[in-house]
Parts: sequence; structure tokens; C-alpha cells
Amino acid sequence: MSLTLSKKSEQVKPSSTLAITAKAKEMKSQGIDVVGFGAGEPDFNTPQNICDAAIKAIGDGFTKYTPASGTNELKEAVCKKFKEFNGLDYAPNQIVISNGGKHSLTNVFDALLNPGDEVIIPAPYWLSYPEMVKLSDGVPVFITGNKEQNYKVSAAQIEAAVTDKTKALVLNTPSNPTGMVYTREELEAIAEVAVRKDFYVVADEMYEHLIYGDDKHVSIASLNEEIYKRTITCSGLSKSYSMTGWRVGYTGASVEITKRMSAMQSHATSNPNSIAQKAALEALVGPQDAIATMRKEFDARRKYSFERVRNMPHVDCIEPKGAFYVFVDVSKVQDMKYKGEKVESAAKMADILLNEFNVAVIPCADFGFADHIRLSYAISMEQIEKGLNRIEDFLNTLE
Amino acid sequence: MSLTLSKKSEQVKPSSTLAITAKAKEMKSQGIDVVGFGAGEPDFNTPQNICDAAIKAIGDGFTKYTPASGTNELKEAVCKKFKEFNGLDYAPNQIVISNGGKHSLTNVFDALLNPGDEVIIPAPYWLSYPEMVKLSDGVPVFITGNKEQNYKVSAAQIEAAVTDKTKALVLNTPSNPTGMVYTREELEAIAEVAVRKDFYVVADEMYEHLIYGDDKHVSIASLNEEIYKRTITCSGLSKSYSMTGWRVGYTGASVEITKRMSAMQSHATSNPNSIAQKAALEALVGPQDAIATMRKEFDARRKYSFERVRNMPHVDCIEPKGAFYVFVDVSKVQDMKYKGEKVESAAKMADILLNEFNVAVIPCADFGFADHIRLSYAISMEQIEKGLNRIEDFLNTLE
Repeated sequence: MSLTLSKKSEQVKPSSTLAITAKAKEMKSQGIDVVGFGAGEPDFNTPQNICDAAIKAIGDGFTKYTPASGTNELKEAVCKKFKEFNGLDYAPNQIVISNGGKHSLTNVFDALLNPGDEVIIPAPYWLSYPEMVKLSDGVPVFITGNKEQNYKVSAAQIEAAVTDKTKALVLNTPSNPTGMVYTREELEAIAEVAVRKDFYVVADEMYEHLIYGDDKHVSIASLNEEIYKRTITCSGLSKSYSMTGWRVGYTGASVEITKRMSAMQSHATSNPNSIAQKAALEALVGPQDAIATMRKEFDARRKYSFERVRNMPHVDCIEPKGAFYVFVDVSKVQDMKYKGEKVESAAKMADILLNEFNVAVIPCADFGFADHIRLSYAISMEQIEKGLNRIEDFLNTLE
Repeated sequence: MSLTLSKKSEQVKPSSTLAITAKAKEMKSQGIDVVGFGAGEPDFNTPQNICDAAIKAIGDGFTKYTPASGTNELKEAVCKKFKEFNGLDYAPNQIVISNGGKHSLTNVFDALLNPGDEVIIPAPYWLSYPEMVKLSDGVPVFITGNKEQNYKVSAAQIEAAVTDKTKALVLNTPSNPTGMVYTREELEAIAEVAVRKDFYVVADEMYEHLIYGDDKHVSIASLNEEIYKRTITCSGLSKSYSMTGWRVGYTGASVEITKRMSAMQSHATSNPNSIAQKAALEALVGPQDAIATMRKEFDARRKYSFERVRNMPHVDCIEPKGAFYVFVDVSKVQDMKYKGEKVESAAKMADILLNEFNVAVIPCADFGFADHIRLSYAISMEQIEKGLNRIEDFLNTLE
């Protein structure tokens, strides 16, 4: 047999958000004053009480294997959080602690999908979903939430996409990249379809604590017993507690799915970092005021960013209600000219912005919306102002 | 579509070593004085300089995303270690840092295997290999290194197992569970077959620093350019630096394989814990005396354990040369009677030992050797003595 490699690994695209963030970092390290709107992580430090818990764990020698699916004390803390924040009843044997939210989703798709199984993914989507589904032998099926629908999909759209191969729907609220939040009524309608058509819902609620204004986070699994049975609720510590580097995600699911994910994780990676598990425990059971402080700061940045962008020429955006992104429609920009040449695409616009205006933004072709860009406001207000000024300068040069 | 789950997740067996270790821990927590020979991890604390580096990383706010395949500084340190310890030339773009050794192997099999591809696994084998291969859609093909061959397989045996579907061979030296070490000559013969028959070698060298006596660790990839191209060298920090809970493994491979593993990891889990990466960096570039100290202690335990076991009735073992396991042939025990009943299997023997003699040992059916047990000497000398006394008591009751 010749030295070929797997088709699976051939088709996977590296994460383009990470690539752009890396390029911006590299420019910065060369002394270039780049404003990075690319980052998908809070700029705040991990709260001190969480860091202290980690340091204590190291001092206590808590540096050994834990149960592969996580410590029981952390699972219990996750259950308490699910109960109190999400209104969800999960027991510790329904929880798997993983190496971050991506790993949780990987486990879920590996547990659910047989070759050819279809997973409905509403666009705009977080760019890793399709890649994850393909890595687990599944087939992504895309439906589109247009701007007119606030970038959300309806239950009717989902139903129209169901075939006899539909295994699951991915539902991300609050949404990366749009910042939109599904309402209880919308979720009820979606749940009704999921139950009637009998497919799973992979509910990615990583940004659940980052909702602003009057919107409330609703976990679809909390709506009724039938949808609870069909839902795998995924969340983690990264975004809410500014713990991106620690890598702690978790799932709530049926006992059977949990058992399978635990068994797979026991071979594929074993337990998540033991120290991070102690840090996550403190995050969940310790004082919660850091969440409120960060949310307040994010909210101020959100309002400022949104107001600025909506008043810029040639672009358009809808007020984001959650997460830390402004999703910007640049379809008109594509048809305009910069220095005599047609901009043509959001990707080219992002290139111009990075190379000529020192601003990193994420073009959203890999999010299923080629004529939009994503701005993360997880950077300081000063940086936001500077970066938006530069984007505005760019837009003002267009003809 | 009904709510089925993936066949992949259905067939995976949970790790039985972790299960037995967990049961022994549970008995201990109930106040039972259990001696645990089950653990696959050093009992030493992580060396203080490594812990200090982690604490500094936390203090420095090094708690954010890193590049998905690991920081460049850590990759450079891994390259330096590969060069100096293994005689291997890898550049940073040939390195992936993962969430522990298991995760490295998972990435490798995902990068190599298409459905139906065969992977030759010499028995006795570490129990996760077949499960990992199956999770990556491959087919494990077993060959056996009998006791008469020191539990090692020959190049001729490997060649006889090659078919037109053979994609890779797993080669684990020093070996878990046998403690055996392949010599340079043995590896040269195996490399010759791999090159001639054109398949990959997945070299799991996790225990490379734990070799005693006159044996030397040889990395198969270091033998010549042709086998270097075909080898993915896997190692990690867990066993050598007593860092099991930290979860840091790594691979050295071709640029192409590395690129694919990086891309998959960027979606499947993203970067390993950032703090653990700083700890791993210190482990590799800091003072190395902790390795020597631990090895010396392991060696004393090894000699004691081996001498005791070889002098026990009804069992037999070969002197282990590496890792921290004694692999014990209990085939005769199976035919004997305990309290009037035939022992029948190593699994039943392990049950009796745990429940009636408070000693946890690992029966090795899941390692491909149903009539052997594995004793880990990664526990204190006092515990080893107490545990071996109990095993001897058990053996003395047999008729």
C-alpha cells in the first residue's frame, strides 16, 4: 500500500479565524500597531479567585489523572449550574467534561453520526461546525437565516430541510458570528419540529452568559421532556469566565449518549487538564460577580460599536443581542472601488483592511455568509475606537 | 430518522485500566486499605520547577488561546529534545502539541486511516490502540509476541501480516504492559520491512526515559531517511516528568501529516491547556535531574518487584527493562483452585485479589493476553511490599 493519508484529513480546512488572528499577532510582534477585531476570546484576565484555585491545585499535587470524563465534584457543580441557570435537570452521569467547547462538540458528533447522516446547520454558522460534522463522517446540510430574519432560521425552514437522513440540528444561541439570540417562542417552534421529525438538537450555548438588554437565554432542552431527551446541551467556561486557554467544556445529555462519549474520550484524549478542572470548579461555585462585570463592559462596547458601524457609509448591521460580535453586511462594499479597483469580496476587503489600514477583521465566507464580516468587540474601548476609525477611513475612500 | 447513535460509539469499550483504578480508589475512599498495582502513572509529584513555571504562567495571564497545535516556543523545545535525546531532526512545522499522548495517537490515526485500512498491532498491546484504530475507521490486525520472544514481535512476523490494506504498524518501546525494550537490531529489521512494504510506523515512545540497566532507547525514525519519512514519533510529558494530569503529548512527523493533524486539531479541540504548555516547556528546557531521580527509584522498585514475583509459586515473569510494569504469566493459576473453585481466568483472579486480598491488579485480556496480569510499580516501595505479600498469600492458598 502506498503512503496515502486519510480523505477525512484531506478535506478539513484549518480554522480561518485562528489564521487571521495569528497573522495579526505576527504583525504586532513586528511592531506594527494592528487593531485586531478577529479574536474570539474575552480580553479580560481570568478572574483572580479562579487563578488562585488553580495555583492551589498545583500546590496540592492535583496533577494526576482524574476520571476520563472529569471529576465528580466538577460534574456536580455543572449539574447545579444547569439546574439554576438553565432550568435543566442533569445528574452527574449525564455530564462529560472535555478539553474545551470544541472537544465537547466533537464528542457529540462522534456519538451521534454514522456515515451519510445529515446535520442541519443554520447559516451564518460558526465555521467549525461543518468541519466537525465531516470529521465525524456526517454530511452538513445548510439552511440560511437571512438578514431580514435577523440571521435566524425558522422552524418551517428547518422542517423543509429534513430528510430521512437527518440526524441532528445544530442550534447556537447566542450566535457566533451574528450575536443574535433565539426567543422562547422561536425555540418552542423548533423543538416541536425536532420532536415530531425525531432528530437530535445539538445546542451550543457557549455564550449563554453574554446576553444584553432585555433578552433572556433559553435552553431548548428546558422546554419540555420530549425535547430534553433529544438535546445535547453544550457549554463551557471559555467565554463566560474568560478561560479560553484553560480548555474546559462540558455537555449535558442522556445517560446513554454520555456513556458513549465518556468511553470514546477515555481512549481519544482521557481527562481534561486536572488543574483546569479545579479552576472550572471555582468558576462555577465561587463568586459570580466577575461575569456581571465583564458583561457590563462588553455591553458598553457593544453599544458603541453598533452605533458607530450603523452610521458608517456602505455597510449595514443589525443590533447584536449577545456574544461579543457585530456582524456587518458589506455586500455593497464589494461592488465599490478602492484605489480604482473593485473590492469584489469581503475576503479582499479584509486583506485591504489588514495590509493597508492595520485592522484585522474576519471575512465570513467560512461562516456561510461571504458578503459579511465579523467584528469582535472583545478588545478595549480605546482599541475599538481606533479600529473603527480606520474602517471608516477605508469606507470613506471607496468610490 | 429514529434516535439511533453511531456504530463507532457503540463498539468502543471503556478503558478497563481506568475502571479498575477507579474501583480501587473508591474502596480506598471507603477506608479500605487497598494496594493499587493498577495505576499507569508515576506516584511522584510533578517536579517543583515545572509547577513554578505553571504558577508563573497563571500570574502572567498566559490563560488565552495559543496556536491550535501549540506554542512555537514549546515546539522548538520539543525539536531540541528530539534532536538531543532521540537523534531526530524535526522542525517546528513537524510538531503538534496535543492534550496528552492519547490525543496525539488519535490525531495520527485520523490523519492516516481510511475505512478498512489495516493497522498491525503487536500483542501484548496497550489496550487503547485497537479502540483508537477503530474510532478512526481502521481495522486492527493483531500479531503476537509470545513469552518465548520476550513478548516482542519479529520483522518476519510483521511481514507475514502485511496485506494490500496494511497502512501502519504500531510500535511501542518501551512497552506497556510488558516493560520490554526493542533493540537497535530488532528495529532495523522492522524498519527494513516497513520501507520495503511501504507502510507507516506509529512509534509510541511515551516511556522513552524509563529504561533501566544497559538497554538504550532507540527511536526507529532515527535509523535512516526512508524509515524517518514513514514514521510518526509520538511521546509526551506524562510518564517521564510525572505530569499525567497536565495532558501534554506531542508528535514528530512529516510536514504534510503535521499540517493535517494541526488542521483537524484546530477544529476538534483547539490548543492544549496554555498553562500546561508553559509547564511542559520548563520540563523540557529546565533541569533534568528529576528524571534521573525518578528513574533510580523506579529501578529499585523494579528489581524488588521482579525478584519477588519470579520467586512466587505458580506464576512466572521476564525481567522488565523499561516503563514501570511487571507483566506476569498467570496461566497456571487459572487451572488451580481457590477455596475449592477453579480460578479460571486472570480476570477472575483479579476479582479475587481485589475483593478478598485488597490488591488491585490489571488482568490483561484487553491487552491481548488473557492469561497475564500487569503490576504497576509506580507506587511506594512499602506499598509494593505489602501488595506483593498479599498476592503471595493468595498464591499460597491455591490447590
